Amino acid sequence: VRVSDVRITSLAATDPPLRNSWGVHEPYVLRTLIEITTDDGLVGYGETYGGEAIARDLRGAAANVVGMNPYAMEPLRLRLRSARLFAAFEVALLDIIGKATGESVSEILGGRVRNRVEFSSYLFYKYASDYDDWGEVMTPEAMVGETRRFREQYGFRTHKLKGGVLPPDEEVETLRLLHREFPGDKLRIDPNAVWSVETSIRVARQIEDLNVEYYEDPTWGLAGMAMVAEKTHLPLATNMVVTQFEHVAEGARLGAAQVILGDHHGWGGLRAFKSLGEICYALHLGLSQHSNNHLGISMAAMAHAAAVVPNCLYASDTHYPWQTEDILKGGKLKFTDGALEVPTGPGLGVDVDPELVGRLAEQYKSRPASGRDDVAEMRKRVGDWLPMKPRW
Amino acid sequence: VRVSDVRITSLAATDPPLRNSWGVHEPYVLRTLIEITTDDGLVGYGETYGGEAIARDLRGAAANVVGMNPYAMEPLRLRLRSARLFAAFEVALLDIIGKATGESVSEILGGRVRNRVEFSSYLFYKYASDYDDWGEVMTPEAMVGETRRFREQYGFRTHKLKGGVLPPDEEVETLRLLHREFPGDKLRIDPNAVWSVETSIRVARQIEDLNVEYYEDPTWGLAGMAMVAEKTHLPLATNMVVTQFEHVAEGARLGAAQVILGDHHGWGGLRAFKSLGEICYALHLGLSQHSNNHLGISMAAMAHAAAVVPNCLYASDTHYPWQTEDILKGGKLKFTDGALEVPTGPGLGVDVDPELVGRLAEQYKSRPASGRDDVAEMRKRVGDWLPMKPRW
Repeated sequence: VRVSDVRITSLAATDPPLRNSWGVHEPYVLRTLIEITTDDGLVGYGETYGGEAIARDLRGAAANVVGMNPYAMEPLRLRLRSARLFAAFEVALLDIIGKATGESVSEILGGRVRNRVEFSSYLFYKYASDYDDWGEVMTPEAMVGETRRFREQYGFRTHKLKGGVLPPDEEVETLRLLHREFPGDKLRIDPNAVWSVETSIRVARQIEDLNVEYYEDPTWGLAGMAMVAEKTHLPLATNMVVTQFEHVAEGARLGAAQVILGDHHGWGGLRAFKSLGEICYALHLGLSQHSNNHLGISMAAMAHAAAVVPNCLYASDTHYPWQTEDILKGGKLKFTDGALEVPTGPGLGVDVDPELVGRLAEQYKSRPASGRDDVAEMRKRVGDWLPMKPRW
Repeated sequence: VRVSDVRITSLAATDPPLRNSWGVHEPYVLRTLIEITTDDGLVGYGETYGGEAIARDLRGAAANVVGMNPYAMEPLRLRLRSARLFAAFEVALLDIIGKATGESVSEILGGRVRNRVEFSSYLFYKYASDYDDWGEVMTPEAMVGETRRFREQYGFRTHKLKGGVLPPDEEVETLRLLHREFPGDKLRIDPNAVWSVETSIRVARQIEDLNVEYYEDPTWGLAGMAMVAEKTHLPLATNMVVTQFEHVAEGARLGAAQVILGDHHGWGGLRAFKSLGEICYALHLGLSQHSNNHLGISMAAMAHAAAVVPNCLYASDTHYPWQTEDILKGGKLKFTDGALEVPTGPGLGVDVDPELVGRLAEQYKSRPASGRDDVAEMRKRVGDWLPMKPRW
């Protein structure tokens, strides 16, 4: 079996005005669909980051993929020299191998150790918009309402608060209200590194008794994270200072983070996520999954990834509930009791609806903005907005 | 596809009286053949350590394998709770998956990054015997002759000396002669931890300029190795103090070894060896392959393992040239220019000759000794022999 064709399609799906420390999400999330076809007619799907640059790079790299044996992934990885580009193709190649053998991607990766993968609420402060029905959430009290909806609609019992938006005391108050309202639930907060070391340490003491399972990227840099880690018993988590294999040794040496938030899109694919799991095991680091906005192909891929790594014990992050549009045949994947059943059909176990792909591809072409720029979007609302670091 | 049957066969093959720090090899090396059959008639082969205990454990564990999907390896690994037992089955399962898909094991493991795998001479001091034609090798001069034969017969240009047999000065003299005779060749010495830290440091200084690429387990324990490493610029290698994933963090923290000699038989299979490669990459450790005595199935498996790990850059150890008997159809695998071509046929790419298996199984049953005991064998020659540590 050889790869005969690679198709790259840029997609845009509506996204609510979610706040973070850089600004606010634009009305569209951009993603890229990778379709790989083999000479015997199998089609494998991958999904990755969106926008012009990555689509151009993927099209440029496709010449390395056409003609290859789908199993020969390691030479492709070395040739591409980009974990992101390789990951995009790798998921599609694994989908093909699964379809060729009749096995699910999680079996191809070495076998599932769990059939259900737990996910976490991704709580965002947000503005109201006429293209989402979550309303404005800009106070601690409103966040309790948002969380209640996540709990009831999806069954999540772990909730990650995207912080770095309101002043730290209001975000602490948010966690306090959430803990009071849902005392058995686990909490996380991720201010995306806009707090100083001093603020991070002060906040750590305030949230240590609020059932916070980890404290994500309160400040920037390996050294800053290590300074905070030294002063709190909360495990620090990161998807900012340890984001590739080359960072692991120094991160571990400094004790900069105790939990790595891996992401197959960035680390080099599902096999790389599994390798990261082995490294975390060897180094006594925790492992969870990071998420950017994504659609259903990535959702299925993440479920397969978490299903094959024994020490992936934290509920994974996902933006998926925020997306109302998807490209999957039969509609979006569904969470029950806070978890996703890992698809067991051949390959990723999900299929793509060409009509929906066409719709989101059309939306990509006709959308006003050129790429995701949370700062520019924020400056439409607050004219002199600048993403300060530290802000507090 | 499901596993329908598991067959465990104990084998014995003649082995010359090779010396090491414990004593001397018995006339037979013991190995165990694992044959896994699927309900559609495929047969996969694995090979592991020999003797009664492992054969009994493998038979006991076989109930976990019968009925399983060959792809579902990770649940099997967790259920067996033994890296050795799992590894024995894993190689056979990978052989089956390869045969089912028409792909070689190295492709199943993620794709080959090299088609030839370099191996090293395994130089042993030895006694003469009537069942080998290498004669006695108990002096530095005689070792030059043994090395010459390895070079000419197999093309090896890296030579590992099994040390800890003659007094350290004579082993240093051996390396000196080898370096003078074969100045471009790379040397290694492995006294199997029978030297004190002081002796190890003294020897290090004497061999630092003899083109020694690494210095293997001169002394015992993580702490001892770290003390030696601190005093030499030679990389220390180990298959004694870092032998499982649980040892890696402390080994790295202490700087006890700079090169890990992995072994798929002990670390948990070919996938585990690949994971070890990822860990070594992340931690800036070197990686090579350790070897016990083995037959052709393990030889093929080792070639596939080294072929898929980019940072496996050292020539691998192998005892294979010392074995005159094997179970492969078509005879032993052949080294050319110091390397083995990685078999590219489906699965391991080698096949087993049932008649040869029968012969070595018969030899196992009729051999006098009950298991490998280098000390007992040595005491037949030197009545009061005791394997001292340290001896020097």
